[in-house]
Amino acid sequence: MDAIQKSMLEKIADLHEVPEGAYNIRSNGALAGRNTTANIDIVTKQDKPGIDIIIKPGTKNESVHIPVILSESGLNDCVYNDFYIGEGADVVIVAGCGIHNCGTDTSEHDGIHTFFIGKNAKVKYIEKHYGEGDGTGEKILNPTTIVHIDEGGYMEMETTQIKGVDSTIRDTQADLKDGASLVIKEKIMTHGNQTAETNFVVNLDGVDSSANVISRSVAKDSSKQVFNSKICGNNKCYGHTECDAILMDNGHVNAVPSLEANDLDASLIHEAAIGKIAGEQLIKLMTLGLTEHEAEEQIINGFMK
Amino acid sequence: MDAIQKSMLEKIADLHEVPEGAYNIRSNGALAGRNTTANIDIVTKQDKPGIDIIIKPGTKNESVHIPVILSESGLNDCVYNDFYIGEGADVVIVAGCGIHNCGTDTSEHDGIHTFFIGKNAKVKYIEKHYGEGDGTGEKILNPTTIVHIDEGGYMEMETTQIKGVDSTIRDTQADLKDGASLVIKEKIMTHGNQTAETNFVVNLDGVDSSANVISRSVAKDSSKQVFNSKICGNNKCYGHTECDAILMDNGHVNAVPSLEANDLDASLIHEAAIGKIAGEQLIKLMTLGLTEHEAEEQIINGFMK
Repeated sequence: MDAIQKSMLEKIADLHEVPEGAYNIRSNGALAGRNTTANIDIVTKQDKPGIDIIIKPGTKNESVHIPVILSESGLNDCVYNDFYIGEGADVVIVAGCGIHNCGTDTSEHDGIHTFFIGKNAKVKYIEKHYGEGDGTGEKILNPTTIVHIDEGGYMEMETTQIKGVDSTIRDTQADLKDGASLVIKEKIMTHGNQTAETNFVVNLDGVDSSANVISRSVAKDSSKQVFNSKICGNNKCYGHTECDAILMDNGHVNAVPSLEANDLDASLIHEAAIGKIAGEQLIKLMTLGLTEHEAEEQIINGFMK
Repeated sequence: MDAIQKSMLEKIADLHEVPEGAYNIRSNGALAGRNTTANIDIVTKQDKPGIDIIIKPGTKNESVHIPVILSESGLNDCVYNDFYIGEGADVVIVAGCGIHNCGTDTSEHDGIHTFFIGKNAKVKYIEKHYGEGDGTGEKILNPTTIVHIDEGGYMEMETTQIKGVDSTIRDTQADLKDGASLVIKEKIMTHGNQTAETNFVVNLDGVDSSANVISRSVAKDSSKQVFNSKICGNNKCYGHTECDAILMDNGHVNAVPSLEANDLDASLIHEAAIGKIAGEQLIKLMTLGLTEHEAEEQIINGFMK
């Protein structure tokens, strides 16, 4: 692996070295390294590109890293990864994709991730997206995440699009059984002429199932963002969505959060706020000696933390 | 006018007698009474059913009542009413439609109301919808309201669907110039198998324009409600939407409020909450001697006030 690839691995998966535990590194559409453990198996799919990640029931304190990097210009990479999380397991899964495009052709990665989370299993799923490179070729990332959570299961999903992604459509669908919980934290920053579209559909099917979707975004320059979120309460359940966006320059944000109550005992709440950084906040930091630009940076960093 | 018609007039326009000031009463598709004043003219349209209401600039403390009642079963009544509110006027307009359907055929009233609100004019617009009658014929009301507010103008729109309307699609579109304000307060209660759809589109085009859309609804029995609201911030502006819904029995509510920020200085906020009456609230009132049903009624009345 060359310096560019190594640097991207660090950006998207905080990896300086080959990770501990199970991992599968995909580089330019091919396998660049894999490790399995006694409890976590990774199997290449036979019918289409992608892998099955199979985690034994009761597996605790283990992690799986499955970063994808693209450094060849013009590559269109699509993978199907399925995650089978056994009953009572408690694991961390770190995915992420980095594109380095120095060429003129579009580089694209579409990852379709499907999670089958067993009874009372806990998953923390971290996904980072990042683009770089001086080329004029576009960097496109379209992640699809499908989540099925069995009784008492729990998933926390943290997705971050750091920078450099020209266009992204992020689809997430989830269905939850009795007592299952889903927490989604999304952070997106767009700049230049980038576009980002996020679509969440969460079906709260089970008794006492719950979902909390929190989105924070910053739209700089002439970038455009669309945030669609739909929470369907189909049983006694609790759902909450929150979408906060900061506008800068000529950034556009369109937030369309939808709540659908199909059961008397569904309790659904939504909040959204879109606006620019308050002038007073900037002035306060500037009186402490920061330039306007530094003050903005501080506020944005705090907001996206 | 017979007793039924008089009783409906009272329900939809709080009218016990012929009103003070300007009025136009439409009964079963025909004119049942009209009065104009020195400042308010009402003119029958020549090209289609409906009236023009022309209010002179500077008119203050005057009101216009334009109730519509349908007591014949099977009538499909559609009117186009245009309101021209002169610069600096300050008036109250009371519309509303009551349908009494004792027959088996569908009775329907579609009112398309267009407001041209002059510079610095103030309008309070009150609209009540009500259905009654023992017949099996449906009672349908589809109001469309189009509002253009000139610089510094203000409109407060209070719409209430009390009960008895089987099906309604309520479309409201507004565009606001510099310094214009719009406040919308909507109250809807549905029961039985009723359906209600509300669509708001507000374009905040002018500098310092503002909109506040507040919707409160109760969905009882097997009734279904859809609430769509879109606020577009196209300039330095302030927009706020709030949608609170109480579910009862098998009531369904789908809330889709959308915020679109197309300008750096647009500040948009949305809140929504859907749920049933909190158990503690009921118990508190029941310990004071109310039955469960009475306690529910108290809470609903307070919520819809």
